[in-house]
Amino acid sequence: MKLTQVTTSDITTESVTGTFEEAVRRSEALRADFLKHPRRYRVLTGDRPTGPLHIGHYFGSLRNRVELQQLGLETFIVIADYQVLTDRDSVDSIPENVTEIVLDYLAVGLDPDSGHTHIFCHSHVPALNQLLVPFLTLVGMGELDRNPTVKEEIEAAGLTTVNAAMYTYPVHQAADILFCKGNVVPVGRDQLPHLELTRKIARRFNQRFCGNRPPVFPEPEALLSSAPKILGLDGSQKMSKSRGNAVMLCATADETAALVKKAKTDPDRRITYEPDRRPEVANLLLLVSLCTGEHPDQIAARLGNAGSAALKKEVTDALNQTLAPIRARRAQFARERGLVRETLRRGIAEANRIADATLREARAAMQMSYGID
Amino acid sequence: MKLTQVTTSDITTESVTGTFEEAVRRSEALRADFLKHPRRYRVLTGDRPTGPLHIGHYFGSLRNRVELQQLGLETFIVIADYQVLTDRDSVDSIPENVTEIVLDYLAVGLDPDSGHTHIFCHSHVPALNQLLVPFLTLVGMGELDRNPTVKEEIEAAGLTTVNAAMYTYPVHQAADILFCKGNVVPVGRDQLPHLELTRKIARRFNQRFCGNRPPVFPEPEALLSSAPKILGLDGSQKMSKSRGNAVMLCATADETAALVKKAKTDPDRRITYEPDRRPEVANLLLLVSLCTGEHPDQIAARLGNAGSAALKKEVTDALNQTLAPIRARRAQFARERGLVRETLRRGIAEANRIADATLREARAAMQMSYGID
Repeated sequence: MKLTQVTTSDITTESVTGTFEEAVRRSEALRADFLKHPRRYRVLTGDRPTGPLHIGHYFGSLRNRVELQQLGLETFIVIADYQVLTDRDSVDSIPENVTEIVLDYLAVGLDPDSGHTHIFCHSHVPALNQLLVPFLTLVGMGELDRNPTVKEEIEAAGLTTVNAAMYTYPVHQAADILFCKGNVVPVGRDQLPHLELTRKIARRFNQRFCGNRPPVFPEPEALLSSAPKILGLDGSQKMSKSRGNAVMLCATADETAALVKKAKTDPDRRITYEPDRRPEVANLLLLVSLCTGEHPDQIAARLGNAGSAALKKEVTDALNQTLAPIRARRAQFARERGLVRETLRRGIAEANRIADATLREARAAMQMSYGID
Repeated sequence: MKLTQVTTSDITTESVTGTFEEAVRRSEALRADFLKHPRRYRVLTGDRPTGPLHIGHYFGSLRNRVELQQLGLETFIVIADYQVLTDRDSVDSIPENVTEIVLDYLAVGLDPDSGHTHIFCHSHVPALNQLLVPFLTLVGMGELDRNPTVKEEIEAAGLTTVNAAMYTYPVHQAADILFCKGNVVPVGRDQLPHLELTRKIARRFNQRFCGNRPPVFPEPEALLSSAPKILGLDGSQKMSKSRGNAVMLCATADETAALVKKAKTDPDRRITYEPDRRPEVANLLLLVSLCTGEHPDQIAARLGNAGSAALKKEVTDALNQTLAPIRARRAQFARERGLVRETLRRGIAEANRIADATLREARAAMQMSYGID
C-alpha cells in the first residue's frame, strides 16, 4: 500500500518535472480549499501493517492526518492487510502489527469519536474487494507492465517470481480509494503513477457504464506531502524499524536518547544546516525543527560550535517532549482491553456501510441489479 | 466462464492423452460414488449470461445437472455475469440474458424447491469475489501466461489489447468454485487447465495458511461430460444462437421444424451413422438418439433409404416431443411475475450465507480475524 510512506522528497530543493510541479500546485490549491469547504472532501489514506510506526511516519503523514481531521475532513484510514500477503511469506505477525498500528493511530490523535475518522482493515470489507473485479476489466495488461513503482517494488522485495496480486495491486488500491468515493489521497511522489491509474479507472468506469447519468466515481486528487524527507539515524535513505535506525512512537524516552546518541554525524564541531554536504547533521536539525517549529538554520546558529553531543541533546529533548503526550496516551490505550477491537469494529462497520452502497450504485450502472438490490 | 459449454469431445472415439484418460476414469469413479454418497459432494457449475440456451446446452450439461439434482447432490449454479464484462463492450443485454437463462434452468427442471439447487449471479456475492484477492497472491504471472484456454479465448474474442480481468479470470473462476467448497465441477476438456489451476490454488492456500490445521478448501474434481459433441445444424463445429444454427429451448415446435428442415445433409439417400465421413447426417441421428435413447446405428438402419427428409422428420418429432414439456413449463414460468427475481434472491441469499462462512474461515487461516469475525 504505502499510500502514506515518507518518501516525498523535499519539493523545494528537488528538480521536478512539469507534471510533478502541477501536482504540487494542485495540492496547494486543495489545502486552501479545505479551510473553506471541508465537507466537499473525503480522504483515503492508510498503511500496510508491517509493524509499529516511527517518527518518519509521524512527521511525514500522521500529523497531517490529524490536521485534516481537525479541519473537519472525513477520512477513511485503510490498514491494507492483504497487501502484506503480496510480498511476505509469513502472516504470523499480522494481528500484532494491526494492533500496534491502531494504537499508534489513536495515540497521535486520530479519533473515531471525532465522527469523521474511520479506521478499518480492507480484508473485512467484501464490497470494497468486489470492486476489484469490474475495475480489472478497465485496465490493460500493458498498463500494469509499464507501472514503474510496481517494477521497483518487485525488485525491492527480491521476488524471483511475480505473483498476480503483486502485479494487480494498483487496481486493488483503486478499490481501496474509490469504495468510499475518496476524492483526496495524500501520497508521496512515487505513488503518483498509482493514483493516476485510479483516476483512469474512475474515468473509464463512468464513461463505459454511466452514459449521460451522473458518474459513480470521483477522480481523486493527490495531496502531496509538504513535509521534508527524514533519513534514518544511521544516515541511510530510509528510516525503518528493521534497520534499527528509527525512533518508534512507542519507544521510551531512554530508548530514544540511546538511539539518538548513536546517530551518525560528522567530526566538524560547528553545527550548520547543509543538507547536501552534511546530510546527517542536517537530518538531526530537521528533526528538532519538526518538533519545535524553529527553522533549522536558526537552531544551527544557536548551537554554533557546541558539537554533535549538544545537537543530539537538542534532538532527544525535542523528540521526547513532542512524543511524551503521544506515548502517555498510547500506554493508556494499550491497557484498555478491547479498545483496538472496538475501534476496528466501528471503522469496519462504517466502511462496509459505504462500500455496500457504492457497490449497489456500481452494479446499477453495470445493469446488474436485477431488481434485487 | 463456460464451465459447462458443450465442447467435450466424444471420449470414446477420440485419441486422448494419458492425463485426459485419467480424468475420464476419475469422472466415471465419481459418478459411481454419487449413487452411494450423494451428500459427500457439492457441485459448482454455471454459464455466462450471453443469451437463452439451446439443445447443445441441454444435452451437453443441463440434463446432467438435473440428474445430479435427482441423485440428491447439492449444486450451486453460478450465472457468471462479471465474465460478460471481460470480452464484450455492451452490458445492455445482461438483465434480459439473466432472465432468459433462469427461465431455461427452471424449465428443464433445475428446481430451487428441491432444497439443494441454488441459482445465483456472482456479482451479488461480495465474499466470493473477495476470495479473488488472496487467491491472486498464490498464482504466478507465468502460470497465467501459459494458460492455453485463455490464449484461445483472447483470440476468439478478437481482443487487440488484453484487459487484466481477461488475464486473471481463471483465478476468479477458482473463487466461483471454492467459495462454496465445491468439490465436483462438470467441465469440458478445454476447461481442464482452469480446473487444474483451481486445484493448485486450493492446495497452495491450505499449505501456506493452514499448517497442521484442517484444510479450508477441497481440491475439486473434474466431472467430464459423457455426452457426445453436438454440431450446429449448418454442419459447423459450434452450435450457437448468433449463427442461426441452434434449436433454442424456448423456440416453438414450428420454428424447430423450420430450422431442422434447413439443416445441412448430403445427397446420399441411404442413412448411415458415420461421424467421420458424414458428420451432418451423423449429427442428426445423434440428436434423435439423445432424445429417444435409441442407438444412432439402429435409427439409421430403421430409416434405410428413406432419405434426409425422413431423417429430418424424425429429428423434428423427437426434439419437439422431448422439448414440449420443457417449453410448456418455460411459458408458464415466464408468465409468473417475480419468479425469476425470487429464484435469484433465494440463490443469492444461500450463496452469500456460504460465502460469508468460507471467507471467515479463510480469514482465520490467514490470521486476519482480529477477534471481529
